[in-house]
Amino acid sequence: MIDHEIRIIPIRGIPEAEPGASVAELILRGLEQSDLVGEPGDILVVTQKLVSKAEGRIVRLLDIDPSPLAQEYAARWERDPRQVELVLRESVRIVRMDRGLIIAETRHGFVCANAGVDLSNVPPGYAALLPCDPDRSAAIIRRELRELRGWEPAVIVSDTFGRAWRNGIVNVAIGVAGLRPLRDYRGQHDTYGNELRVTVIAVADELAAAAELVMGKTEGCPAAIIRGFAYEPGEGTARELVMPPERDLFR
Amino acid sequence: MIDHEIRIIPIRGIPEAEPGASVAELILRGLEQSDLVGEPGDILVVTQKLVSKAEGRIVRLLDIDPSPLAQEYAARWERDPRQVELVLRESVRIVRMDRGLIIAETRHGFVCANAGVDLSNVPPGYAALLPCDPDRSAAIIRRELRELRGWEPAVIVSDTFGRAWRNGIVNVAIGVAGLRPLRDYRGQHDTYGNELRVTVIAVADELAAAAELVMGKTEGCPAAIIRGFAYEPGEGTARELVMPPERDLFR
Repeated sequence: MIDHEIRIIPIRGIPEAEPGASVAELILRGLEQSDLVGEPGDILVVTQKLVSKAEGRIVRLLDIDPSPLAQEYAARWERDPRQVELVLRESVRIVRMDRGLIIAETRHGFVCANAGVDLSNVPPGYAALLPCDPDRSAAIIRRELRELRGWEPAVIVSDTFGRAWRNGIVNVAIGVAGLRPLRDYRGQHDTYGNELRVTVIAVADELAAAAELVMGKTEGCPAAIIRGFAYEPGEGTARELVMPPERDLFR
Repeated sequence: MIDHEIRIIPIRGIPEAEPGASVAELILRGLEQSDLVGEPGDILVVTQKLVSKAEGRIVRLLDIDPSPLAQEYAARWERDPRQVELVLRESVRIVRMDRGLIIAETRHGFVCANAGVDLSNVPPGYAALLPCDPDRSAAIIRRELRELRGWEPAVIVSDTFGRAWRNGIVNVAIGVAGLRPLRDYRGQHDTYGNELRVTVIAVADELAAAAELVMGKTEGCPAAIIRGFAYEPGEGTARELVMPPERDLFR
């Protein structure tokens, strides 16, 4: 291994998650299937979809009764009114609602398309919602891995979000445990001696993005290990990754 | 090497770039210092700062004569009026100008803080501007590496951008050569047979983010190799990563 290189390792063979399943146990099954052993200092990135399934945050669209607003918006833009209804229910604030899109703030404070409600990688006729408390989900996975196997990686729960101004979606962190999601360079100096005044790197988002490169969208690989990155240990919460309202120019 | 793992390898020992320097030659010097050899299929990520220095896109603040708008905004928010002037000159459209911040569209179509004008990792009293044509910068690096060493990696020129709604900055791609920056899953099916209708992943941005994890901001490591990622070869341009105005809800 080259000095200071980072490795992104897919965990394959993770079984399908049923409601009530332990994500940690599923991850350990995948590690066995992949002939992998967790190491100290590892970061485990797990997709929101796997966590949501295990937490039963999957709803059957047939059970949803859409409101008039959901019905009208869906009809106008050829969307499923039940999915639109779920999006409205998962939102605490609508940021933009135009051209068939809904960009909304979730209860966690995340601003994303469809408030995280997603119809892919779930059985047809179902929708996945974001975990209620992704930081807690991450903390439980971490604690159970320690209890079951003595392995205590930092854990990131990830989801793919769109971005203002940029095309394409990228993986970001929506829950963290055991690492500081931001690396704050303020007050440090670059190699010229300039003080860095504004540089705060969202390392948890960069780690989530890196993990997506091995997870893909069609291959059923909902978790990855990142090995060799010297993260800052700490309690941490993905709320640190949310722009505070008073500094948000794009509410 | 584990099946399908991806490695992110820092290139250390890259010499300081003088105006007119060949970035490819500097990278090769770094590879020698780091005892690394380029391999087929590699992706080379190079920071904008290294490219801008080599292309002479560095200006001395003393030479800048700020306009009244730059002077007033700088005075109001305790900023350097010459930097504000440079930001205005590098902008084609101001998206937000409030609380001391300037979020602007550059000639390339990127929307970012300060139109990419940056005072860090340059000599004190100087500012770095974005390369005039980062796709072309990437293509030249790629061509020269092939000519000099028979190594033809995909090349990404990266910069760190802030994001709407999320705290912290992340590395993104502002120039690409030899790879398709977007991975389009539309029309493919997930493991449940659901057709993916909207999934387009900004892989070039995820690759740039991954590279940042080894580059840091204070260690003078302006380039990295990503090895083991099966990118889609192609001409590609970072313009594909810019949200088309007609689809942009946040202009």
